[in-house]
Amino acid sequence: MKAAGRELNLTRGKPATEQVALSDALLTAVTGRADCLAEDGTDCTNYYGSPQGLIETRRLFAPIMGAPPEQILIGNNSSLALMHDAVVFALLTGARDGGEPWSRSRTPIAFLCPAPGYDRHFSICEQYGIRMIPVRLTGHGPNMDDVERLVADPQIKGMWCVPKYSNPTGETYAPETVERLARMPAAADDFRVFWDNAYAVHTLTETLDDLVNFMDACARAGHPDRALIFASTSKITYAQAGLGLFAASPTNMAWYLKRLASRTIGPDKLNQLRHARMFGDAAAIDRHMQRQRRLIAPKFQAVQDVFRARLGSTGAARWTEPRGGYFISLDVMEGCAKRVAMLAKDCGVAVVPAGRTFPYGRDPNDTNLRIAPTFPPIEEVRQAAQAMATCTLLAVTEKLLRDRGVND
Amino acid sequence: MKAAGRELNLTRGKPATEQVALSDALLTAVTGRADCLAEDGTDCTNYYGSPQGLIETRRLFAPIMGAPPEQILIGNNSSLALMHDAVVFALLTGARDGGEPWSRSRTPIAFLCPAPGYDRHFSICEQYGIRMIPVRLTGHGPNMDDVERLVADPQIKGMWCVPKYSNPTGETYAPETVERLARMPAAADDFRVFWDNAYAVHTLTETLDDLVNFMDACARAGHPDRALIFASTSKITYAQAGLGLFAASPTNMAWYLKRLASRTIGPDKLNQLRHARMFGDAAAIDRHMQRQRRLIAPKFQAVQDVFRARLGSTGAARWTEPRGGYFISLDVMEGCAKRVAMLAKDCGVAVVPAGRTFPYGRDPNDTNLRIAPTFPPIEEVRQAAQAMATCTLLAVTEKLLRDRGVND
Repeated sequence: MKAAGRELNLTRGKPATEQVALSDALLTAVTGRADCLAEDGTDCTNYYGSPQGLIETRRLFAPIMGAPPEQILIGNNSSLALMHDAVVFALLTGARDGGEPWSRSRTPIAFLCPAPGYDRHFSICEQYGIRMIPVRLTGHGPNMDDVERLVADPQIKGMWCVPKYSNPTGETYAPETVERLARMPAAADDFRVFWDNAYAVHTLTETLDDLVNFMDACARAGHPDRALIFASTSKITYAQAGLGLFAASPTNMAWYLKRLASRTIGPDKLNQLRHARMFGDAAAIDRHMQRQRRLIAPKFQAVQDVFRARLGSTGAARWTEPRGGYFISLDVMEGCAKRVAMLAKDCGVAVVPAGRTFPYGRDPNDTNLRIAPTFPPIEEVRQAAQAMATCTLLAVTEKLLRDRGVND
Repeated sequence: MKAAGRELNLTRGKPATEQVALSDALLTAVTGRADCLAEDGTDCTNYYGSPQGLIETRRLFAPIMGAPPEQILIGNNSSLALMHDAVVFALLTGARDGGEPWSRSRTPIAFLCPAPGYDRHFSICEQYGIRMIPVRLTGHGPNMDDVERLVADPQIKGMWCVPKYSNPTGETYAPETVERLARMPAAADDFRVFWDNAYAVHTLTETLDDLVNFMDACARAGHPDRALIFASTSKITYAQAGLGLFAASPTNMAWYLKRLASRTIGPDKLNQLRHARMFGDAAAIDRHMQRQRRLIAPKFQAVQDVFRARLGSTGAARWTEPRGGYFISLDVMEGCAKRVAMLAKDCGVAVVPAGRTFPYGRDPNDTNLRIAPTFPPIEEVRQAAQAMATCTLLAVTEKLLRDRGVND
């Protein structure tokens, strides 16, 4: 394998060129001066209009966000940026008007981090000195007994959740999990759940998993301001040239907008107009996502086929069979993930560094590897899966030999 | 005038529709899949490439930024956002690696604010509790004796500057002013000048004012990391759908990028590509700005003509005759600005609330009004200027009568 000198890349959830090409109608959705007027008459090539973005684009994404257009804000190209800014606003000015800035807390504040999870969420916490407390995922969301116990500590101010087709485990939070997250008492009265619904419509089957509307559940439970909802079109239309989406309670939206006003006059509305024009309605997004599915589901299947053939019933590894999202989560035998990643690198297969899916980059059992099969052509995905399987078997064999005291 | 029921708006520096229409080639600069590849092969509809933006777009704006492409970052649609984020990064993580976060300072930190200035700069400070110290502008930049005296206080961490065709006074900093800003010792070793060169190429004449390259001056003076340079295309191409620009020393750029990585994977590169394709080179930007000038210079002239005819030699007001930028700064007799704005509002002319051009919205002499003549048609600009002149004369007459103890 090393001799073949391959360069295969399974690192990040990056769409394939055929996938982004499905949205090339964006390039010609707005081509003349007359096209630039939004439905309320806003000239999208000039200043002003609502800092929340165009009403037609908010209406388009309302079903995905599970909120009415008035409670939606559409930003520029990154939902991570919207999350980052919400954390920053809370750190410097408090998570609600009149609240104590999180950065002024005498003891460092902390976030709950269901793990394995999205490394860029963890990076925000790490950058700003927010302590991270990992919480085990169960296959239907975080272990809620642990979560309920932990939020009795008033220093726990936030929690990261990717509730649907979670990154990287692919699990969707069960209704009872969502209800408990909404209902549980939290000692911090400004406790916030960062609900990153990044894969809301990203199915690998013909239907979508159901997910309880978290904002509604919070409102019903008497915690209307607990939920901050995020999503993006990065893996719907153009990655890094799409739209970041944010929904919140009226109080939270007012809180966010007040602070945002010092940062920007408003988002690029022209790109919002392109999206509204191309899709027209939410049903068109569903049809579009089925086209995406037809391109990527075979790649996920290829990995499953290889893993089943090579690793099935060996006891060397377990892996997820996601119904949606962008990843396969591979759990190799304890203590082997770093070695597998290193061996894979040696034979030209790049995967995210082992541990990266955990807070502080520390996988306590050195077991998890995240596999992103969407970008490479299917033949390369298959080759990479073969390589990963071989490296897993090799690393596990080394470990078993070592455990038995046999040094090679 | 009240009976005429007019609605005239001179509030914000907003381009006219004919101005943004000069850039409509942006709408068709990238229309097909093959167009989406940048010169280094980056697919601008997918993830990755440098977080600093496309090299060809950085090269295009290098002359405006006065820095090599490696020291330039192109963001999304707002330079204010880039400034805001630099302040936030300094507050939460320190203005340099290993530096004390500004928000941890025991006594509140402060910024020098040449005034009158840009209200949105002041809003950033106000939001985050950064004390603002106004500094008088002289017609060729801030009063440097005051500045040099003030920066001997280690709590002074920053300074806002709009060095060319300043908002709203229109003045360009003299060479000696720029050199002194670069050279002066500052007690805070992480003192930063936020150099918002928003009107770098926005001339109202056939030539551009000269401005000393501040980053180079700082480097020569042994303060290479003092300058953070900002600009945008908001008033070059599309307002709110253009590009925010940032330049800094290699050390500062590394500092910024490290923190930015937790916020976003990178900017929307497709819009950067559109700009690179439409302009091609910096000379095209200069030609473009001459077309802008031909549209807006007559509006500035209309205001001058009215003011000269109505207010000249009355002693009721002084005003600027800018060679570039977006504003005319009107200084009415002390204690009259608020009243002028109120009278103007009554007869249907909206101007930015009096005082807004000063820190905390407090004009110590209640004298300054900012006039933005670019957006309305020239006939409306003329009518609005007439109204402003009448309101000025009325307010000043009221004051003079009051001062003589004559109550009406």
